Amino acid sequence: MLKGYSVPRSPEGRASIVPAPPWHYAGDFLVLEYWANPEAVAAVLPSALKPYHKDPGRCAALFVDWQSCTDEGEELLDPIRAQYREFFIVVNALYGDELVTYCPYIWVDRDFALARGWIQGFPKKLGSIHITRTYDVPSRAASQVVPGARFAGTAAANDHRLAHGVVTLEKPSPDGPTHNAPPLMNVRHFPRLAAGQHDHPAVHELVRARSFNREIANIWEGTAELQLYPVPNEEHAALAPVRMGKGFRLTFGYSVDDLETVEYLRSEE
Amino acid sequence: MLKGYSVPRSPEGRASIVPAPPWHYAGDFLVLEYWANPEAVAAVLPSALKPYHKDPGRCAALFVDWQSCTDEGEELLDPIRAQYREFFIVVNALYGDELVTYCPYIWVDRDFALARGWIQGFPKKLGSIHITRTYDVPSRAASQVVPGARFAGTAAANDHRLAHGVVTLEKPSPDGPTHNAPPLMNVRHFPRLAAGQHDHPAVHELVRARSFNREIANIWEGTAELQLYPVPNEEHAALAPVRMGKGFRLTFGYSVDDLETVEYLRSEE
Amino acid sequence: MLKGYSVPRSPEGRASIVPAPPWHYAGDFLVLEYWANPEAVAAVLPSALKPYHKDPGRCAALFVDWQSCTDEGEELLDPIRAQYREFFIVVNALYGDELVTYCPYIWVDRDFALARGWIQGFPKKLGSIHITRTYDVPSRAASQVVPGARFAGTAAANDHRLAHGVVTLEKPSPDGPTHNAPPLMNVRHFPRLAAGQHDHPAVHELVRARSFNREIANIWEGTAELQLYPVPNEEHAALAPVRMGKGFRLTFGYSVDDLETVEYLRSEE
Amino acid sequence: MLKGYSVPRSPEGRASIVPAPPWHYAGDFLVLEYWANPEAVAAVLPSALKPYHKDPGRCAALFVDWQSCTDEGEELLDPIRAQYREFFIVVNALYGDELVTYCPYIWVDRDFALARGWIQGFPKKLGSIHITRTYDVPSRAASQVVPGARFAGTAAANDHRLAHGVVTLEKPSPDGPTHNAPPLMNVRHFPRLAAGQHDHPAVHELVRARSFNREIANIWEGTAELQLYPVPNEEHAALAPVRMGKGFRLTFGYSVDDLETVEYLRSEE
Repeated sequence: MLKGYSVPRSPEGRASIVPAPPWHYAGDFLVLEYWANPEAVAAVLPSALKPYHKDPGRCAALFVDWQSCTDEGEELLDPIRAQYREFFIVVNALYGDELVTYCPYIWVDRDFALARGWIQGFPKKLGSIHITRTYDVPSRAASQVVPGARFAGTAAANDHRLAHGVVTLEKPSPDGPTHNAPPLMNVRHFPRLAAGQHDHPAVHELVRARSFNREIANIWEGTAELQLYPVPNEEHAALAPVRMGKGFRLTFGYSVDDLETVEYLRSEE
Repeated sequence: MLKGYSVPRSPEGRASIVPAPPWHYAGDFLVLEYWANPEAVAAVLPSALKPYHKDPGRCAALFVDWQSCTDEGEELLDPIRAQYREFFIVVNALYGDELVTYCPYIWVDRDFALARGWIQGFPKKLGSIHITRTYDVPSRAASQVVPGARFAGTAAANDHRLAHGVVTLEKPSPDGPTHNAPPLMNVRHFPRLAAGQHDHPAVHELVRARSFNREIANIWEGTAELQLYPVPNEEHAALAPVRMGKGFRLTFGYSVDDLETVEYLRSEE
Repeated sequence: MLKGYSVPRSPEGRASIVPAPPWHYAGDFLVLEYWANPEAVAAVLPSALKPYHKDPGRCAALFVDWQSCTDEGEELLDPIRAQYREFFIVVNALYGDELVTYCPYIWVDRDFALARGWIQGFPKKLGSIHITRTYDVPSRAASQVVPGARFAGTAAANDHRLAHGVVTLEKPSPDGPTHNAPPLMNVRHFPRLAAGQHDHPAVHELVRARSFNREIANIWEGTAELQLYPVPNEEHAALAPVRMGKGFRLTFGYSVDDLETVEYLRSEE
Repeated sequence: MLKGYSVPRSPEGRASIVPAPPWHYAGDFLVLEYWANPEAVAAVLPSALKPYHKDPGRCAALFVDWQSCTDEGEELLDPIRAQYREFFIVVNALYGDELVTYCPYIWVDRDFALARGWIQGFPKKLGSIHITRTYDVPSRAASQVVPGARFAGTAAANDHRLAHGVVTLEKPSPDGPTHNAPPLMNVRHFPRLAAGQHDHPAVHELVRARSFNREIANIWEGTAELQLYPVPNEEHAALAPVRMGKGFRLTFGYSVDDLETVEYLRSEE
């Protein structure tokens, strides 16, 4: 009998691209809060979500340097299977009366992270992401976490730059970021290939993320700069900033072993 | 309204990791026919398929240097979105009384090919694949298609070598390969993350590939050598050869816009 | 005693990044002939070369899909060590009264090709290069070599697109390209790090390429389109086209085991 | 006039693969002290160095997660040009009566680091290196620096795994590592291609590293495990451990703008 949480399912269940949950994550984040054209934000929402009229166009861009593992943690001893970097954009929206966060575009640099994202409803593609790191030693190269320090993130896909963001730190942050704080809702989606069914996906459902062991540390805030570059086969640049908010740097950890399906969507949504 | 055949669905439908079918493919193939331990072959079959008792253990390993596009062919003018390389193993099996081909393990080097494979039921992971090419000029480096020429394929994933194959050409092949000739059946699979549902995938169905515009050319045959290396998190080496058959080099083209779901499988299969 | 043509030199001499010559090459070429701003061309010449006043600004951009090996050809059986792709720009210049070709900028996608280029005086950096391929089978994806077929090349470095070129084939070419035909002269250069010597390289010499076994085949010609994109840390876009010439597709093979040092340059050149 | 410290030299001097020194570095290190077969260590020494007879076979393997920049630090805002990972082996030797460190083999994952290494006499090739990171948040995925924590490094080149090392932390280290502590001596080497000169490199000199602003922090020590895997075209596995010493994790920063040439070597050395 074949075993394994994801393909390829195999006799011993060791070959799966994504092993079974729970999945544990730790990451260093750059969060750049901003506002895009409200019409552009409305245009990326699935029809089950509505624009957040009280603060239209509210977005955040996030660059994350991740490490992740399953319960046994064996990935940490073969870190090519544990580490990945990610760039994504979130927008705020309403689900009924509830303020939520929705992720229209996201890129990661490893296959297991792409597949694990799809399972959670993140619309991941592969990209190349780089993020300034801090080292705990005095050096011009160390990017220490001090007032005035600048941390940058870049993202690319298919050999095109997609984004460049810079956060300039000012001080420890009393409150942390807010644009990505509302509960996250995604759309899980898996197409059909049968003739006549290309517009009727096999999986098409609005989901609400669930997580546990959420921990946040070392939150600093300051100013933010962000460029989103138009490139063929991407539409993220329609969400380019019209106004910037604060920038943040922080460390975050959490775990995932569950997901709530909120609505089965009609195929035209 | 969001558009697009696959994630991310977007206002203009240009961002999808996989654009809508039809998909057209052309590839240079190395096909290495062999036999593995029959028990190992039986162990990779989904329960809807049975071992091919008349010739137990029959397998083939394939290295393919692909180029693909949609109808407009725009990917051919941005070839990072058209080209990919692939390594996969197929085994023979019975579906009822019908001899079929089944692919337990496959690696590709680009995200669009991974996602397009999942939609067709290929259990793709990312890898690094390299295949000797031929050039139409006399040179020691040109690997021209002549008797005695040797063509190699290598595959790796997560920085481990998975496979090394060599085909030594003898002559144009009157019949072409047979181990991968029976109709291809895959299992489309997409997991659930909801607690308690990890063993009940959202999509789990036996499918039969459909294609058109199939063209084959320049088939040569000769001898084959193949090594499959055991590595952590892979189980393909259980299908290592116990006996080699012929090796082939050929060029193949085909198109896909359909798929037949043959059975909805129970989750334990 | 340590052995090996290049670093790392080792007890058995097997570890060198570049094995000893001769080196054999076969490649599929896209050649895009054009003219840049003559001042921009003059500005990239070492002082030992002078602008080609009879046809100022004459350049070519080349995308090449290479396979290479040493005498034993073992690299062809481990093709990750044989294959690479390359994008480069050449300009025409005068050495005394002799019309020559000079390469100011070049990118390759493998380390052995970078190092082998430095040894020959090519100023190589790493990049990501993709080039449309042809397959010998009727398919929309096959890019067959026929009138009207379009072949593209792209180059990127540090996650920025550098160049996009397209050649549209018209007919077999009676004469082949001319902008890259004059003898190639490079500058071999290797810096010093000793304090006070940063401007006095250890190697700084004008060289003339030597090769043998030159073979060319399947030359087609047509029209050419080329974009060179300005990016940080690159200056190639100063050589962007002001006028396009013909485009070519061809296959070329040659071998190298020699180089002529023409002048030892002063460090300020 | 062309400008730039390294190729490609260009009108504005912005295109060089390696900008002019000083170069500033910060890195998180895993240092695995061990002893190899003394004959194997003697065999990798250039003839100007002699085996360290008082403690024969003494080696260390190092995995480093680097960030580097020039004085202006602009690379830190485009971190693809600042960050790289490195794996290298050092052996102890005598230069006259002086105990020194010599690096026979080293791999990095970025072109600027490869070229900058060559200039300093490090025999760099490209590889793929991964190193467990620590995150300052409680999580199973965070690999916090505590007694019992395990940090791993892996290295690969040409799709083959070269090395796997694990350090298990026990306690803050009072003294830090010693196998890599003696002054570093390298051999700068740049070949000739002129016929008859392949064995007479243009640059072949014993050099002594110079650095400033050396800072070390957060030194922990514990036990170490190391595997070096034999692969084609590499000879590092001859230096596999016969006995392990301590393992260390630490953060290190330093700057480089100078190098001392100690001896011009004869070509046969």
